[in-house]
Amino acid sequence: MSDATHWILTLVCDDQPGIVHAVSGAVVEAHGNITESQQFSSADTGRFFMRLQVESGIDRASFEAALAPVTSRYDMEWKLDVVGRPLRTLVLVSKAGHCLNDLLFRQRAGQLGIEVPLVMSNHPDLAELAAFYGVPFEHRPVQDADGKQAFERAVLDVVAEHDVELVVLARYMQILSPELCAALAGRIINIHHSFLPGFKGASPYRQAHARGVKLIGATAHFVTSDLDEGPIIEQNVVRVDHTRTPNELMAIGQDEESRTLSQSVKWFAEHRVLQDGARTIIFK
Amino acid sequence: MSDATHWILTLVCDDQPGIVHAVSGAVVEAHGNITESQQFSSADTGRFFMRLQVESGIDRASFEAALAPVTSRYDMEWKLDVVGRPLRTLVLVSKAGHCLNDLLFRQRAGQLGIEVPLVMSNHPDLAELAAFYGVPFEHRPVQDADGKQAFERAVLDVVAEHDVELVVLARYMQILSPELCAALAGRIINIHHSFLPGFKGASPYRQAHARGVKLIGATAHFVTSDLDEGPIIEQNVVRVDHTRTPNELMAIGQDEESRTLSQSVKWFAEHRVLQDGARTIIFK
Amino acid sequence: MSDATHWILTLVCDDQPGIVHAVSGAVVEAHGNITESQQFSSADTGRFFMRLQVESGIDRASFEAALAPVTSRYDMEWKLDVVGRPLRTLVLVSKAGHCLNDLLFRQRAGQLGIEVPLVMSNHPDLAELAAFYGVPFEHRPVQDADGKQAFERAVLDVVAEHDVELVVLARYMQILSPELCAALAGRIINIHHSFLPGFKGASPYRQAHARGVKLIGATAHFVTSDLDEGPIIEQNVVRVDHTRTPNELMAIGQDEESRTLSQSVKWFAEHRVLQDGARTIIFK
Amino acid sequence: MSDATHWILTLVCDDQPGIVHAVSGAVVEAHGNITESQQFSSADTGRFFMRLQVESGIDRASFEAALAPVTSRYDMEWKLDVVGRPLRTLVLVSKAGHCLNDLLFRQRAGQLGIEVPLVMSNHPDLAELAAFYGVPFEHRPVQDADGKQAFERAVLDVVAEHDVELVVLARYMQILSPELCAALAGRIINIHHSFLPGFKGASPYRQAHARGVKLIGATAHFVTSDLDEGPIIEQNVVRVDHTRTPNELMAIGQDEESRTLSQSVKWFAEHRVLQDGARTIIFK
Repeated sequence: MSDATHWILTLVCDDQPGIVHAVSGAVVEAHGNITESQQFSSADTGRFFMRLQVESGIDRASFEAALAPVTSRYDMEWKLDVVGRPLRTLVLVSKAGHCLNDLLFRQRAGQLGIEVPLVMSNHPDLAELAAFYGVPFEHRPVQDADGKQAFERAVLDVVAEHDVELVVLARYMQILSPELCAALAGRIINIHHSFLPGFKGASPYRQAHARGVKLIGATAHFVTSDLDEGPIIEQNVVRVDHTRTPNELMAIGQDEESRTLSQSVKWFAEHRVLQDGARTIIFK
Repeated sequence: MSDATHWILTLVCDDQPGIVHAVSGAVVEAHGNITESQQFSSADTGRFFMRLQVESGIDRASFEAALAPVTSRYDMEWKLDVVGRPLRTLVLVSKAGHCLNDLLFRQRAGQLGIEVPLVMSNHPDLAELAAFYGVPFEHRPVQDADGKQAFERAVLDVVAEHDVELVVLARYMQILSPELCAALAGRIINIHHSFLPGFKGASPYRQAHARGVKLIGATAHFVTSDLDEGPIIEQNVVRVDHTRTPNELMAIGQDEESRTLSQSVKWFAEHRVLQDGARTIIFK
Repeated sequence: MSDATHWILTLVCDDQPGIVHAVSGAVVEAHGNITESQQFSSADTGRFFMRLQVESGIDRASFEAALAPVTSRYDMEWKLDVVGRPLRTLVLVSKAGHCLNDLLFRQRAGQLGIEVPLVMSNHPDLAELAAFYGVPFEHRPVQDADGKQAFERAVLDVVAEHDVELVVLARYMQILSPELCAALAGRIINIHHSFLPGFKGASPYRQAHARGVKLIGATAHFVTSDLDEGPIIEQNVVRVDHTRTPNELMAIGQDEESRTLSQSVKWFAEHRVLQDGARTIIFK
Repeated sequence: MSDATHWILTLVCDDQPGIVHAVSGAVVEAHGNITESQQFSSADTGRFFMRLQVESGIDRASFEAALAPVTSRYDMEWKLDVVGRPLRTLVLVSKAGHCLNDLLFRQRAGQLGIEVPLVMSNHPDLAELAAFYGVPFEHRPVQDADGKQAFERAVLDVVAEHDVELVVLARYMQILSPELCAALAGRIINIHHSFLPGFKGASPYRQAHARGVKLIGATAHFVTSDLDEGPIIEQNVVRVDHTRTPNELMAIGQDEESRTLSQSVKWFAEHRVLQDGARTIIFK
């Protein structure tokens, strides 16, 4: 099957008997061979989730035609993509560069499955870093409500113009309006530090130090209008001890932020992240 | 589907297109709903592995009848079991009780999916521990070749009498005869300490200390006549440093042995462990 | 030095130059040899912390006499104990036995450095488990405010009678009165589950499931009157995914609770846990 | 103490009473304040190891004069260095660039505490990578015994010329002569992959795949003439499963090699790695 295409098919619908049989029948009809398959039935929402990788020599139109009766009969949300096609990804940043650097380094090394048409920022600081990786950078100051509104309009314009599939908040330090959250629902990811227990308010690393936490970490999640409370995609922690200063805790936490965000972007770009109400299904 | 049975179906056959469709068709015919499904195509052996959980209201005979045309057509090895049925498990021990204690505590807490009709040992030391958990204990000294042969015959008798499905060597310190290994192939699990690099010969913790290893761990594997070289089921390690004495290394290693063995037994009891030549497929 | 005693000396005082020299001078005078030494200067509180292990053939009175000029000059809080002397430890439990089982198993195996004169509970369920390990068990129902007061008085009586050095809340599910917390300050340890982010209120595992967390864990901490907010001693987490039910999350969380609590008790018994305001210094 | 120097002092001698007192007395005399202190008495070799960080306003000659009576009296091996002084480090490579890239990236980011006057290789492949980081690169083919001898002579010349303090084998694929190992004893570090169990011979990742290992890792160690058997400095592992191809295992293993080697170099550069016979003491 040397000239076959390697497809990714994701499906979501109400759970009921016969789905797998119907889908695998469509794959047989499309002369496809299933090379990877994962499914999950959510007891919480009654929804069924499936991700397939299929090798097949037929073209997209024929594959879609083979799928149509099934996706229609089960009222499925579905997506058909090709393994390895880079996802068009807009990155928003402010001043801290650790997440952006990790994303662009891995993107260039071919580890992430994304392409980045633009980096946007409310500060000029990271222009040089973007330039080093050959990525366009746009600086738009956000000093008041008008500036913020203009920034968000520009984001939506860029999303439309470049047909952006994913927006990544790589330590972008502005709170998004509910309207922007809604417009990008399901395709915008944020990263933030995480502690056990959580700390509210300013200077969380200082608070974590004061309390003497033994683990610090990071959480990547979808952005919803409920600040920092969207569905969790990935979390990591690392062990620390009493000798660490607040600044060292922050450096360690930033490493966790970088790798947690990059991992989440990679999974999203491979269509391994599906939403089930307030939870995510991760088909690693 | 309140009075439905929750089935586990495992299948192995040569890989080829159409298997998933055929199997899911049989499930549809059995009025079943697939609640969990995992598959793997081995590039090494050309074999296809599948594990399904299926809810269905029909009885075993009808389910098997629905499966028969498919399992026969693809020349499948297959097994049909019920979720939660405890696996009949014989445990062999010697003097060290850490693995037995962990197994019996978790078994009683309902975390392991096994029942233990008997613990057999070549030493009397652990009789009291077994008694606390209400498990019969049989002590048979092994002082010479005859004693060893008698012990192994007794094992096979117990396996036959109780229809034992799994034998666990929970720090049983006798080498098994090739005949016993062969008779129990694919249903006997051992645990042993592991280091990087490995150490041959006596007093491995002392050797590990002398070399200053930074990680020590444990490996659970199927027993074959090739000593400690059977297919690996699970491995864990934990970090140590230069301040540890050989005795402390041993205590740490024993903790890893306990949790690694219990994890492996749990997966086996849930039919999540399949063999692919010298490797295992673990459908977690 | 075959008949030497192996001492543990812990010291806390305001940080200033010359302390190490003064302390080591006292050790020389006591004909002692330092076999382990750790120190920490807290930038937060300006306090200096030190833990020494010293081999010396002299008796306690002579050692204390050698130390007296130094501890007095630097206004030190200090403690002198003997390596391996088991700490008298009272354990409080309710219904869940996983932490108690882990503590008693490790205690009997000589891994914890404690002795347990009594287990007290507001429920009868764990009497049998305590009996298996040969530990006295006292059941006192707590059904109302009076019962609670009586229970707490009994705790203080036991602490006095057995000269208890450590109280462990091994899933004891009653909130302690501020008076009891104050009376046992610095020698009472609690364990509870931990998540990122934290969840307030009932059924935390159900909440964690609903939010789809990817890590769950446990925190051991000193008890203060500020509920679950005392100085943290140890934390652990383990990775989970979307397939886990709330019950499975709870089982996984309980494993983390057991090992985190046992680890904390072991460090405390070895005088490796010192308090620095709201933080702990852990001299592992 | 704003114009104080921050010193690192490491000491090794036969263990005996009074060392800490004597050393801390010399520090007092040098008007120093101990900010970090670690010690270890080896039960294996009877040697005592100590590492201090000391802030003091006096110059090197005065500090050494204060130490001289003590180091002489206890016949100490000792070293006095300044925190943050970059260690002169020669890196040897062959074709694989992952370790070199990680070392140079971290070196430039100021995370490693080294400077690299030269990269030497028996292949030309990595010249461009070295150039990107602005590091001189010397290619010397090694095609026969003469070429090998010439390469090793060149290494010793570079070590002498640049006063090299550390030689790092960053996947340098030639076996060193016993003479070179002896000449660089205690200041040459190698990295190699590690498995449980170990695999001898060619294509270890293929063997590890065939055996279905669940953990793969890396070991950094001092080089001795006993191939791959020198004192271990650091080890790491990462979890893998049955879906990984041999090539993927290799990619994962290379990540572990990179981070394990960089970690070891960092500790060495901070004088945190001391040798105790066949073991290392790591004062993290």
